[in-house]
Amino acid sequence: MKHTLAVLVENKSGVLSRVASLFSRRGYNIDSLAVGVTEDPEISRMTIVVQGNDQVLEQVTKQLNKLVDVIKVSDIGADDAVERELALIKVSADVTERAEIIQIANIFRARIVDVAPKSITVEVTGDESKINAIEKLLRQFGIKEMVRTGKIALIRGPKKV
Amino acid sequence: MKHTLAVLVENKSGVLSRVASLFSRRGYNIDSLAVGVTEDPEISRMTIVVQGNDQVLEQVTKQLNKLVDVIKVSDIGADDAVERELALIKVSADVTERAEIIQIANIFRARIVDVAPKSITVEVTGDESKINAIEKLLRQFGIKEMVRTGKIALIRGPKKV
Repeated sequence: MKHTLAVLVENKSGVLSRVASLFSRRGYNIDSLAVGVTEDPEISRMTIVVQGNDQVLEQVTKQLNKLVDVIKVSDIGADDAVERELALIKVSADVTERAEIIQIANIFRARIVDVAPKSITVEVTGDESKINAIEKLLRQFGIKEMVRTGKIALIRGPKKV
Repeated sequence: MKHTLAVLVENKSGVLSRVASLFSRRGYNIDSLAVGVTEDPEISRMTIVVQGNDQVLEQVTKQLNKLVDVIKVSDIGADDAVERELALIKVSADVTERAEIIQIANIFRARIVDVAPKSITVEVTGDESKINAIEKLLRQFGIKEMVRTGKIALIRGPKKV
């Protein structure tokens, strides 16, 4: 089972290394990790997607809370959260294929961010399944290159993590 | 000076930890890091923004290339790259403030992804300065919570990293 953890940490060097090594020492597999600043420049927020049952999750949370730079760890359930990921996908495309790719992009509310004679680059946001779906459709043209941010999430409504 | 590194790595557990500890041991400061799968499920792509002059960059690149799970390291110059980041921003908003927030979101081509009686959540993609700009504008209403993915980037045109 996949869990999404929101981890608030002090914005100091070495924190990422300590968090990542905690997961790797214990053999917990990170599906994705994204880290960026928050509304408070002193605090960064890591969004970590980790595989495991409830027991693994409890252990991970306990271990993370022991780290001195970790401020708060929350498990964000998918039911009541806005979950988003960003992907940039560069697709092989000559002039004749462009229209069809633009049509697919429109259906997925994706944006065309670069066009060259032999390629077109698409920016898409959504949950994992949406990004997988557009990736699958674009694969027929040939995906030259793709980069994804990993998931970020916020609880719905006014509540904070 | 900020550099954006695209690091292709084997999709194995422990890679993130080795990369992160390389930066922390040497005292190189990571501004942001995003890691996700690529068009090849065996390969993950890390996008790392690091501060430093050309000498620091050369050393980081050399050290990364020494790691066994690192396949390729490329410095993506801002001039010829599409750079994007994703942010979710939860803003305090009662009914009377909603219209103004929606107007700001429209100007930035941001999307409203959740509305509650006392809050509104906005999804925005763009380069760092665009996200900083909308954050600054929304700050007047009170930002309850913000999460950012960190930057991802692709070179413009058909070329790959």
